[in-house]
Amino acid sequence: MEIIESVQEFHDVRRQFPAGTTVGFVPTMGGLHAGHLSLVRAAKQKCDVVAASVFVNPTQFGPNEDYSKYPRTFDSDMALLRSEGVDYVFVPSADSMYSKNHRCYVTPEGFDNLPEGVCRPGHFRGVATVVTKLFNVVQPTHAFFGQKDAAQCVLIKRLVDDLNMDIQVEVVPVSREQDGLAMSTRNQYLSKEERAAAPVVYRGLRVAKEHFAAQPGASVSAESIRAIIRDEYEAEPLIKEIQYISVGSKETMEEVEEVRTDKGAIISVAVKLGSCRLIDTITL
Amino acid sequence: MEIIESVQEFHDVRRQFPAGTTVGFVPTMGGLHAGHLSLVRAAKQKCDVVAASVFVNPTQFGPNEDYSKYPRTFDSDMALLRSEGVDYVFVPSADSMYSKNHRCYVTPEGFDNLPEGVCRPGHFRGVATVVTKLFNVVQPTHAFFGQKDAAQCVLIKRLVDDLNMDIQVEVVPVSREQDGLAMSTRNQYLSKEERAAAPVVYRGLRVAKEHFAAQPGASVSAESIRAIIRDEYEAEPLIKEIQYISVGSKETMEEVEEVRTDKGAIISVAVKLGSCRLIDTITL
Repeated sequence: MEIIESVQEFHDVRRQFPAGTTVGFVPTMGGLHAGHLSLVRAAKQKCDVVAASVFVNPTQFGPNEDYSKYPRTFDSDMALLRSEGVDYVFVPSADSMYSKNHRCYVTPEGFDNLPEGVCRPGHFRGVATVVTKLFNVVQPTHAFFGQKDAAQCVLIKRLVDDLNMDIQVEVVPVSREQDGLAMSTRNQYLSKEERAAAPVVYRGLRVAKEHFAAQPGASVSAESIRAIIRDEYEAEPLIKEIQYISVGSKETMEEVEEVRTDKGAIISVAVKLGSCRLIDTITL
Repeated sequence: MEIIESVQEFHDVRRQFPAGTTVGFVPTMGGLHAGHLSLVRAAKQKCDVVAASVFVNPTQFGPNEDYSKYPRTFDSDMALLRSEGVDYVFVPSADSMYSKNHRCYVTPEGFDNLPEGVCRPGHFRGVATVVTKLFNVVQPTHAFFGQKDAAQCVLIKRLVDDLNMDIQVEVVPVSREQDGLAMSTRNQYLSKEERAAAPVVYRGLRVAKEHFAAQPGASVSAESIRAIIRDEYEAEPLIKEIQYISVGSKETMEEVEEVRTDKGAIISVAVKLGSCRLIDTITL
């Protein structure tokens, strides 16, 4: 496994790949867990060459978010990627990715109005910008993202389509702990008590999905789905805040009023469990 | 010469190029003249394969600009490109480049504060977006732009650097008519009388450059340079409006107070000659 720190060096390596090489790319912020490794395995299965990146991207964190305390676990990340057979890892410094003259950002209009965008203004601009940059460094044919960040997956597909990138976006199902908690680097912020309560987040989604599946009609009201989840979350005293319970279109993540049983929808949620923010998602 | 209308088809062709192929790209809005052809020749000289595009990009025109009347001369454009030995021409439709769900734009912060940006709000966002898209379609190793659009050249270099594109930007000197008028597709909007007066635009720049070269000191005030050009333009009754006379940094195009004789600067101007808008530039 080759660890590459500079854009120029990655470009030099990339130019040597023979025409027709399929290149699978897994961008990460490090703090790797089994969810990331499922992305790497999907890439290994599909592509000739697999590249990952580890970069905690400052532009996707808000001023009051956890940029400085975000887990940085370089050595164990490299060991995990090596054991999965990754060929190249790109690990740039923040200074090299954003020079003092940096001016060009990729702005995904409307995404700051999605529930996750309202909670994290500017987050999707940061994601769109860094993913565009990383794509230009690695020049993958396939790129792998986890379904947990549902709006991010919709954004990346839009980005690739809008900017005419020749990249296939692959969305990989959420990896979960045995008790259903969606894997996340941020789960390590949970206290023991919070960790024990955390499966409620996914339990609410499952109950809503069962409710949806049991309806005989052509559509189900989004509000009835939200109400079921809200009841589950309000019954858990450690949930200090329900930031949103969104029932959105699979294509755009924009809220729907009614979920047609033949079309489905994406439910996505964000809650504060103690002081930790947890997100999760399920597809109807 | 292969004429390609769809993004997908260009991607399919591009994937077949052997590793190490140098690909020169000349993006145009059609209405081709000798200035464009000088870009094609520079690309032919430098690269194994040469691609051009002809696309009148709606997002770089303001609401009161000449998008609908911009010259569209498809047949003669294709004949000219063919005679220069261009290998591929990309000619998409506006609908195929901007779907109704298009959301992602490339925003070059600060460029709307440059003199040309103040005159044309949103113009540079449109340019940055379409150039990023065209680069992703063609995937060039080298891209060729004319110096006439001085701020655009600075923008494209920033774009390539900021978004980590593996592309060499080549800036080609302004092509001029015998009397000094910078070649432009929009010159055909000039009446006979306006055309006869139009060389004043470049004449002002040359007088300013001679003034600068004759100064013995370590620097020259930008205002003294602007005043010389203003005097030339105000002596021409057909110049109805001086939109700007800018003396800017070669790296950022931002206005300077003093031009250091060892560093130089870029002068750029925009005037209304009758109802036609003319721009030009010279390097100190």
